[in-house]
Amino acid sequence: MRLPIRSLLCSWRLGNSSTADTGRRQLSGPAMRLVQFCRRSEEGAVRVGVELDAGQGVVDLRDFDSSLPNTMREFLETGERGMEQAHRALSSGKSVVSLSEVRLLPPVTAPEKVVCVGMNYRDHCLEQNAPIPKEPIIFSKFPSAITGPYDDITLPEESKEVDWEVELAFIIGRKGKHIKEEEALSFVAGFTVANDVSARDWQMRRNGKQWLLGKTFDSFCPLGPALVTTAALKDPHNLGIRCRVNGDTVQDSNTNQMIFRTEKLVAWVSQFVTLCPGDVFLTGTPPGVGVFRKPPVFLKKGDVVECEIDEIGVIRNTVI
Amino acid sequence: MRLPIRSLLCSWRLGNSSTADTGRRQLSGPAMRLVQFCRRSEEGAVRVGVELDAGQGVVDLRDFDSSLPNTMREFLETGERGMEQAHRALSSGKSVVSLSEVRLLPPVTAPEKVVCVGMNYRDHCLEQNAPIPKEPIIFSKFPSAITGPYDDITLPEESKEVDWEVELAFIIGRKGKHIKEEEALSFVAGFTVANDVSARDWQMRRNGKQWLLGKTFDSFCPLGPALVTTAALKDPHNLGIRCRVNGDTVQDSNTNQMIFRTEKLVAWVSQFVTLCPGDVFLTGTPPGVGVFRKPPVFLKKGDVVECEIDEIGVIRNTVI
Repeated sequence: MRLPIRSLLCSWRLGNSSTADTGRRQLSGPAMRLVQFCRRSEEGAVRVGVELDAGQGVVDLRDFDSSLPNTMREFLETGERGMEQAHRALSSGKSVVSLSEVRLLPPVTAPEKVVCVGMNYRDHCLEQNAPIPKEPIIFSKFPSAITGPYDDITLPEESKEVDWEVELAFIIGRKGKHIKEEEALSFVAGFTVANDVSARDWQMRRNGKQWLLGKTFDSFCPLGPALVTTAALKDPHNLGIRCRVNGDTVQDSNTNQMIFRTEKLVAWVSQFVTLCPGDVFLTGTPPGVGVFRKPPVFLKKGDVVECEIDEIGVIRNTVI
Repeated sequence: MRLPIRSLLCSWRLGNSSTADTGRRQLSGPAMRLVQFCRRSEEGAVRVGVELDAGQGVVDLRDFDSSLPNTMREFLETGERGMEQAHRALSSGKSVVSLSEVRLLPPVTAPEKVVCVGMNYRDHCLEQNAPIPKEPIIFSKFPSAITGPYDDITLPEESKEVDWEVELAFIIGRKGKHIKEEEALSFVAGFTVANDVSARDWQMRRNGKQWLLGKTFDSFCPLGPALVTTAALKDPHNLGIRCRVNGDTVQDSNTNQMIFRTEKLVAWVSQFVTLCPGDVFLTGTPPGVGVFRKPPVFLKKGDVVECEIDEIGVIRNTVI
């Protein structure tokens, strides 16, 4: 029942608030696909793992090294030591769990922050005749919105206008404040796929036009399938990104259309808040969302939404 | 290094997302003033305590019962059992730490949510010629903004318009979704004092008018001095509430001016998200903020801001 003091300290400062890990480290650690999962035989027990190639299973990190923690957020707090140990586990051929035994969970749960960026694709601004923003527009979801890569999206009775938004997400790997753009990538553990599910009625017309409520219904942040470390991607800002609803492609763009890239977003947001391991950033969506179609299209029960980014993977969520 | 599964589950659902503790329980547990503190001799180690009357010290709950947890969020997760044991500790005369040995921390740290309400005092709407809202306006801070009752507020270089807002805050005591107004108070553990520190330039003119960034700089959520359980207050909606800057009273109202009260806010927000133990609500500010003065007044280094609510107490934060 004891929370590690370190995780408390990250969200709240004893004494000097400007303390941050500003030391430089290598931009890229090992290339890996990290996951959170549970074994089907013990539903409820969260584990951190590394995917083997081509569906060969998942390495259970805590089975390999019992000193490693059970959640991604705590794993990321172990820093380079954890990453190196995970890489050793991957190479060992030990502690492998077969995919049929695995249920994938969101790659991170209970982060301190889910930071979202609005209007961050040139082509998405064009589709709504909006000017290209000169500064990032930052909003948030509560962590309670996060759900797994193959879990259901619950359509709330409170909204009639629930929409999809495929997004490249990244996850912070170490603590920092006032991070410089040149060093920003060294604070990022890796990338994943998100669906920034949005209730347009609540986002655009209610709640004093503050977007939060329309963005944060339970299950409105499917995430996964894996945290793909930066070293495992050729270039996170040149990846095909698409969304399919019931098999029809509704969004199809490239992350090279992003206005403010990962480095800029880390630097920008860390002017305001201390970032800490596990913090999730959703970097904005390309064109093709339902609300700007003519006529508008919204999600209904039974729809299957697939969000896909090249080299990272696909998440698939059924609307219930 | 093991996070309790229960705390993970609260922010993220394995399987059935509508599971929530909907059982009825007594509206009022014991009357107590719960705190988080550290002993000055062991800075960094968080403890949960109960205040004795009239400055006689704090009862260290984990010293009294080693099965009790170290943080308020986990303590609240223990539910009635924890509350009853805390009350037993208070009556025991044991495990008392003298006030000179105690540094008070925020009564809750690292909550899953900091839910804020805008425009929620009739008299505050009048001062800015704004209509009385028909629905609550909900925004948020990141938990990283939380700081202690006597800690410093760091004036960020990025803003020239940092303002005060005294607010009644409440803290959720048990998990729930779609909570009915009639039952809402039974989901509230108690009340505390907050300062919803706000960078008006960022809140009102930047960031696409999304309030988040202006509200969530590090140290922009002083909280405390204690979580006062509901049973310890005569009526949380009839309390004098005031703010002083360098000794001058700048806000002076009563919580009876709130438009949407605790019960309504719990019911409203729980339509969107699952609430869980430790979630903090800031319920809006009365008139007298700096930005609506003629000419406007903002905080500067060296200012001392005191936020006070009758029966709960005073927080005092120096601007640095």
